Amino acid sequence: MKTRDRILVTSLALFNEEGEAHTTTIDIANELDISPGNLYYHFKGKDEIIGELFQQYELALSDTLAAPLEGPLGTDPSQVEDNWFYLYVVLEEMWQYRFLYHNLDDLQQRYPAIRKGFRRLLQLQRSALLAICHKLLEQAVIDTDDDQLLSLVDNMTLVLTFWLSYDQLLHAPRSPHIVIHQGVLQLLTMVAPYLGDAQLTFYRDCQAIFEGMIASPEKPEPQH
Amino acid sequence: MKTRDRILVTSLALFNEEGEAHTTTIDIANELDISPGNLYYHFKGKDEIIGELFQQYELALSDTLAAPLEGPLGTDPSQVEDNWFYLYVVLEEMWQYRFLYHNLDDLQQRYPAIRKGFRRLLQLQRSALLAICHKLLEQAVIDTDDDQLLSLVDNMTLVLTFWLSYDQLLHAPRSPHIVIHQGVLQLLTMVAPYLGDAQLTFYRDCQAIFEGMIASPEKPEPQH
Repeated sequence: MKTRDRILVTSLALFNEEGEAHTTTIDIANELDISPGNLYYHFKGKDEIIGELFQQYELALSDTLAAPLEGPLGTDPSQVEDNWFYLYVVLEEMWQYRFLYHNLDDLQQRYPAIRKGFRRLLQLQRSALLAICHKLLEQAVIDTDDDQLLSLVDNMTLVLTFWLSYDQLLHAPRSPHIVIHQGVLQLLTMVAPYLGDAQLTFYRDCQAIFEGMIASPEKPEPQH
Repeated sequence: MKTRDRILVTSLALFNEEGEAHTTTIDIANELDISPGNLYYHFKGKDEIIGELFQQYELALSDTLAAPLEGPLGTDPSQVEDNWFYLYVVLEEMWQYRFLYHNLDDLQQRYPAIRKGFRRLLQLQRSALLAICHKLLEQAVIDTDDDQLLSLVDNMTLVLTFWLSYDQLLHAPRSPHIVIHQGVLQLLTMVAPYLGDAQLTFYRDCQAIFEGMIASPEKPEPQH
């Protein structure tokens, strides 16, 4: 791997584990066993590293978020799981760049360059969730007006955005697998009351699976 | 007002407006036109000020959050508005100490003394919201199991906790009146699909009132 890429990978790991505010460029250079001058040759400070990491993240997540906009995910009851897997992928990508979600406000203030990009991502999340909700609700008994649907989508976007922070506030550290699965379940909980019978059955299955995970957190994690 | 109290009031105002991280004890002393030494005589640094402000906040909010635990709020359809007013009061108290909610993770890390208190408040919020949901759902058609209800309450707690941050991420600054009202509406949106007809009518009324507020943000704010 090129030094430039190694710097990015190591920075991301340190930011995620130690918090961005507690990581200096010196820490990054030390971790890589390179001189600060060598690091500086590639990046003129933390700003540039964070800007680059954010670009990587925006590119990856935008791509994922575009999926339900380009074509509906599984909408008939037999494919309703597609939405679960989809949300799982979204949350997993967020987990990989989780330092961005802890101290969101502070980061945006200190690095104004990523503020616009972040707002773009937030809007894209809303559009993706709206597309999913529209499709899911089309086939179920709908008792909602458009405003209520938009409020629902805002709530889902909010839960998605702050789930990792909320989990950290409430619990001792848990395995990413459990944190991400519960995040997906929390999102599905919000659409559950609007779902038809077949889809509600799927929701109950997800609940049961998650309860099993909580009960036996030791079992090996599936490959993904 | 005693100097000690003036320091607290001014600190709170500066933290809310400028952000806690961007406010030093020197800034606070300057704003009050007192010497740093005078400030230091009352508080041995920002830690102590923040600890004291958090205690004030925890005391006030705990009191409010206890209400639905001690006795149910308006549960028959004619009193369902009580829940709206109640949530409004909760969000207004949060607004008054909003610096705590921006950079939540960072604050908790830098001031471990408030971490426990914050978790206590979070649990109390969950209990209060659970009590409200229980009462509301008792009289409506319920199609939810206990796990789903707990997930719902977690989602509501999360939306309550991060609403102010989310609003700031998404919008240019808006009047507190609108921000708080929309927060209440977002919370009610989550219980809406579980509500009976009479309560749903009330929810629609709230939506209409809020749309009116958005349409004419200039009109004078009611006294509260």
